[in-house]
Amino acid sequence: MPGEFELIARHFAALTGRRADVVLGVGDDAALLDLPPGQELVATVDTLALGVHFFADCPPAALGHKALAVNLSDLAAMGAGPAWALLALTLPAADDAWLARFAAGFAALARSFDVSLVGGDTCRGPLAVTITALGHVPRGQALRRSGARAGDGVYVSGEIGAAGLAVRARRGEITLPAALATHAARRLDYPQPRVALGLALRGLASAAIDVSDGLLADLGHICASSGVGARLELARLPLPDGALAVATRESLVGSGDDYELCFTVPPRHEPALGALAASVGCALTCIGRIEAAPGLWLVDEAGQTRPAAQGGHDHFR
Amino acid sequence: MPGEFELIARHFAALTGRRADVVLGVGDDAALLDLPPGQELVATVDTLALGVHFFADCPPAALGHKALAVNLSDLAAMGAGPAWALLALTLPAADDAWLARFAAGFAALARSFDVSLVGGDTCRGPLAVTITALGHVPRGQALRRSGARAGDGVYVSGEIGAAGLAVRARRGEITLPAALATHAARRLDYPQPRVALGLALRGLASAAIDVSDGLLADLGHICASSGVGARLELARLPLPDGALAVATRESLVGSGDDYELCFTVPPRHEPALGALAASVGCALTCIGRIEAAPGLWLVDEAGQTRPAAQGGHDHFR
Repeated sequence: MPGEFELIARHFAALTGRRADVVLGVGDDAALLDLPPGQELVATVDTLALGVHFFADCPPAALGHKALAVNLSDLAAMGAGPAWALLALTLPAADDAWLARFAAGFAALARSFDVSLVGGDTCRGPLAVTITALGHVPRGQALRRSGARAGDGVYVSGEIGAAGLAVRARRGEITLPAALATHAARRLDYPQPRVALGLALRGLASAAIDVSDGLLADLGHICASSGVGARLELARLPLPDGALAVATRESLVGSGDDYELCFTVPPRHEPALGALAASVGCALTCIGRIEAAPGLWLVDEAGQTRPAAQGGHDHFR
Repeated sequence: MPGEFELIARHFAALTGRRADVVLGVGDDAALLDLPPGQELVATVDTLALGVHFFADCPPAALGHKALAVNLSDLAAMGAGPAWALLALTLPAADDAWLARFAAGFAALARSFDVSLVGGDTCRGPLAVTITALGHVPRGQALRRSGARAGDGVYVSGEIGAAGLAVRARRGEITLPAALATHAARRLDYPQPRVALGLALRGLASAAIDVSDGLLADLGHICASSGVGARLELARLPLPDGALAVATRESLVGSGDDYELCFTVPPRHEPALGALAASVGCALTCIGRIEAAPGLWLVDEAGQTRPAAQGGHDHFR
């Protein structure tokens, strides 16, 4: 079995191409990186751990993809362009074939967004992947959670709920029709970070967050940070085909792992969203509106309004 | 038991003060950071995992200190000033008292180097701490592993071997006299990153690395990166008082976890090191010299020269 340093050198070298702004990459005590002038550095870290964030049968390539994707999704929610990543990998054993597939999944996504791997660490233990993603945004132009104002439209990209359905199906709680099962598994294992959308929303959105804990919980974070409330119309939720045959809108609005963007847009900018959706190639759906008074309200299909039960993932509950 | 978000908010808020260059810290999808003009970003990541890097009886405050210290040590080895850190913490349970002590250890070291915690993630699992440290260095002035040239002096800061003695004592392999036991435990649990030394070595050292894998292995990394060899004089090693009563010089040169700096200095700059050692408050000892031919050679106390057995930590061997 090859040693740690060889493992890192072999598989990390294959992980991704090298950007011109990487002055010094993997192989020294630290990486040296060139941030373009006029930009703020954007930094985030997320861990995916076996049994908490993914199942034992998660394909290694999917894990490599997803561990990077969830971090790029955080950068997207800030309106930042991704640039560099650092990878801390805990493995039960140095399995060369496993690492090759993990690296392939990571590298494919990294290349598609021109992200360079610039640092790494490995150690032995229960499977877990911690990635730090670094990017940048022109000074003062980042999207924050705190800018939502009463009257702003509440939007979500793509569709909501498929990843949560896949989780419930893998736990044996529900059975999905074949087409939905395939679609949902793909959404759970290979989430696509909305990087282009995040960049395009700069100057338009008043607040943004990525949908990781569940749409309702994440919109709750925007409201809490902004000191506002929101009214969500369940009938407007963009759902996967066939989802309502196996789940309620109420459950889908609380399921996580979608990695779409939820964002708010002042009325004067809302007319621009049609062209923007076309240019970035994903649906943007208005699902509600921000209100001055704190509190999250759900309007059901019958037009009845009621307070939303707060929820979301919480690994320590 | 409080939830994840409350835990993070409560203990992370207490972790460290906030620098003026933190535009947006913990609490959004990512942090926004201001890199001073003319500087390169320096980034590194390291994981400490229970049973691999520390023992079950490691005090939480020491773990909080050490997890940050080993990363600041990497920045020091680049000649970089530390600025920001991101923390990914995997815990078996949300233990409030444990977290308070961990946070106190982290915060004390962070404050002493004016490091702001700007991001974090927690999840449930076997205890492990992954920290990404970010800092900066004036463009083109970073210390690398690759600059050592034949004739350069090989230096090490402080002393070597105490942390390795503490590891062997905790494993029951050796018994240390009381004073050495206390000293060695302190060195293992609370390593002091040589940040001031790293900054002072810019423009003087031709190469640098921090001593984490063991002096011999780390000097080997410098030689490999620089395409040179080195001759090490065992009699010159700066060792803890009493160390030679319980261990050989050969074993001490291979023991890790010291977090001193090993660096090479061209002869024309060596006269400056005396004043530099006084100004940064730590001993700097010349322990050998770089040679043109690859290979590491040990000169023993009797003046006999022999090839060094390569070694060092490797978590996958």
